[in-house]
Amino acid sequence: MAGAKDGGLKRLSCDNDDKIARDWFASEAQKLGCKYEVDAMGSQWATLEGENNALPPIGIGSHLDSVESGGKFDGPLGVLTGLEVARVIKEGGRKTYAPISVINWTNEEGARFPPGCMASSVWSGVLDIDYAHKCTDTANRSITIKDELARIGYLGTKSVSNKTNPLSAHFEIHIEQGTRLKKAGKDVGVVDSVQGMQWFDVSLRGFTRHTDTTPMDLRQDALVGAAQIVLEVERIGRASQTGMATVSLFKSWPQSFCNISGSVDFSFSMQHSSLPVLKDMTAQIKEFVHKVAKERGLEVAKYDNIVNFDPVNFDAQAVACVENSAKEMGYSYEKLISHTGHDSIFTNMVCPTAMVFTPCRDGISHSPLEYASPDNCGIGAQTLLGAVLKYDDILRRMHSK
Amino acid sequence: MAGAKDGGLKRLSCDNDDKIARDWFASEAQKLGCKYEVDAMGSQWATLEGENNALPPIGIGSHLDSVESGGKFDGPLGVLTGLEVARVIKEGGRKTYAPISVINWTNEEGARFPPGCMASSVWSGVLDIDYAHKCTDTANRSITIKDELARIGYLGTKSVSNKTNPLSAHFEIHIEQGTRLKKAGKDVGVVDSVQGMQWFDVSLRGFTRHTDTTPMDLRQDALVGAAQIVLEVERIGRASQTGMATVSLFKSWPQSFCNISGSVDFSFSMQHSSLPVLKDMTAQIKEFVHKVAKERGLEVAKYDNIVNFDPVNFDAQAVACVENSAKEMGYSYEKLISHTGHDSIFTNMVCPTAMVFTPCRDGISHSPLEYASPDNCGIGAQTLLGAVLKYDDILRRMHSK
Repeated sequence: MAGAKDGGLKRLSCDNDDKIARDWFASEAQKLGCKYEVDAMGSQWATLEGENNALPPIGIGSHLDSVESGGKFDGPLGVLTGLEVARVIKEGGRKTYAPISVINWTNEEGARFPPGCMASSVWSGVLDIDYAHKCTDTANRSITIKDELARIGYLGTKSVSNKTNPLSAHFEIHIEQGTRLKKAGKDVGVVDSVQGMQWFDVSLRGFTRHTDTTPMDLRQDALVGAAQIVLEVERIGRASQTGMATVSLFKSWPQSFCNISGSVDFSFSMQHSSLPVLKDMTAQIKEFVHKVAKERGLEVAKYDNIVNFDPVNFDAQAVACVENSAKEMGYSYEKLISHTGHDSIFTNMVCPTAMVFTPCRDGISHSPLEYASPDNCGIGAQTLLGAVLKYDDILRRMHSK
Repeated sequence: MAGAKDGGLKRLSCDNDDKIARDWFASEAQKLGCKYEVDAMGSQWATLEGENNALPPIGIGSHLDSVESGGKFDGPLGVLTGLEVARVIKEGGRKTYAPISVINWTNEEGARFPPGCMASSVWSGVLDIDYAHKCTDTANRSITIKDELARIGYLGTKSVSNKTNPLSAHFEIHIEQGTRLKKAGKDVGVVDSVQGMQWFDVSLRGFTRHTDTTPMDLRQDALVGAAQIVLEVERIGRASQTGMATVSLFKSWPQSFCNISGSVDFSFSMQHSSLPVLKDMTAQIKEFVHKVAKERGLEVAKYDNIVNFDPVNFDAQAVACVENSAKEMGYSYEKLISHTGHDSIFTNMVCPTAMVFTPCRDGISHSPLEYASPDNCGIGAQTLLGAVLKYDDILRRMHSK
């Protein structure tokens, strides 16, 4: 396996390591006696039969892909716990009323092929599959995700649609990626909502010329303008109290010792649980970017809003199943808002959805230092199992009356 | 020819286009009946015999390489004018007392293989040839300049040394890369000095983790720290009045949508004509970098001073030859300081050196918009020819007595 340069996990969607992880999932699914299918976005579906197989399955999904330098838990915890829940049900000799599908959603991270949550977006009907298939590798714009799915043997035939392949509900377990559970001294998080988020791609164009001979007052230095914006994004994030704001991708041109920067392309994100606050944050930065550009003689050649999610609430009944499961097991829990996106945001648009969070070390994620203890993972898995069975009971009552 | 993406000239040292320009120089030198040699740094020497060939030649040198996106004048004007001066002497049926060497110094820009002024540094004894030969391509660290010189057929045998291959003097014509001549309404610049400059390579290390889930106050974002430094470098440059200060190379890692920047590598330069002011500028920024790092929990993993030139004065006798040449021709002139480095800084360490500047459009350089009019280039060439002949007269008087 390749790995990131700082020792992190690098399993970018549809790369050779992703194929290894997918092959392992397929083999586990088959060992469990599941019906195994791959859809046209490469998502893997492992379905355990229920009593009433006419009903849409209850999904337990997450992702096996990582960012450029990630950890072992963000994503895989959800897929592996899904397999474990299926195994416990199967080996306990119990049959659920609805079928259970464990799902490895393709390209949740979007690190190699933006946008993220790609397969779940298509499945929920938000993203067109033809558009998704043409999304390209950030490192090589001639490679599409469809090419790479075909190359690794994961361009399946199952249709990617909540209409033709619906779910009765969707549950997902994930590390918290925060420190709220630890601070509150709780065992597990019952996730009832997700904060809103917006992403932007910006290009600033200045004028490249000689560093040593151009007087300071004659410059149109795109890097200095971009630096002001980086600091303003941070200031807005801090001022929002509970929100976040970050410039991540950042490339200046030309990379040349004696040249003033002629252009900078960068991406930034803003998150907040309050829609009015989020809108105010994005309005502030837009005004600032244009002000800086005007003052410095730069052109705002691109200002694209590439991701736009309003804050969402998960389905009350699905959340209650998670909460009641934790309660019954005697676990201490906290109702939490998720700070970032997950495939569950998209499934929630078309079927009842809720999430389980487990505490993780220092809240660190997207880092080789990402860690959750076996005890915490076990408590999360147990909560997830209970939630799935509770929702299954609801379906049984609803359809057997 | 490849060209830069904005239409600029891209002829990086020892690339395929550099070979084309070198082959042209070799052919011109031979047409002029010069003795043609290539030294072990790939510099090309075209020498016209004089009356006393025991004397070291008077050099007229500059460079044919460009930056990533440069113009047609920075460098080539000096080499082409050198050939033209030799042609006028030859075709005028005149023989100088000392031989005249027109020199294409290898890798003045250092854009592909830092540091710049590489061949002239080796020739002047400042840089060891073995060290220089091992300098690597910024885009591919496995390629050395020696490899590339051999590949394009320009790893010559003439020794690179002012001791074994000395010059009696060195003259260089260059576009001004500023607007002082135009503002003063003068025909030509008599360059008597060069401002001091320092270059630094810096690496800041922070901690990469999730953008959406890491509270603002828990971050060690190397990009935000670097942005503060970019702005402070600019502030120091402005405050220095006549000096410059620029961050040019700038790379953050990882380039990943959902990751806070874990590290940034950048380079900056500072220039000033006053050594105490330059020292104060570099002291200020060093203190600031460490202060920002401390405040943000970043590590200054590298802080290397890679270029360090004190302000220099060119040789008074060589400068007088340029000034008297302009005066005799009836050109209006201005004594100027050069704001940036040239091969002449290095030749000046071991032989009398001076430069001629021609006005250029809007002071623009290292840009496709770089331009100097044929009239201005002609005046500069005439001034250079006169300066060379005046210095030759000095040599004749000195050695014929």
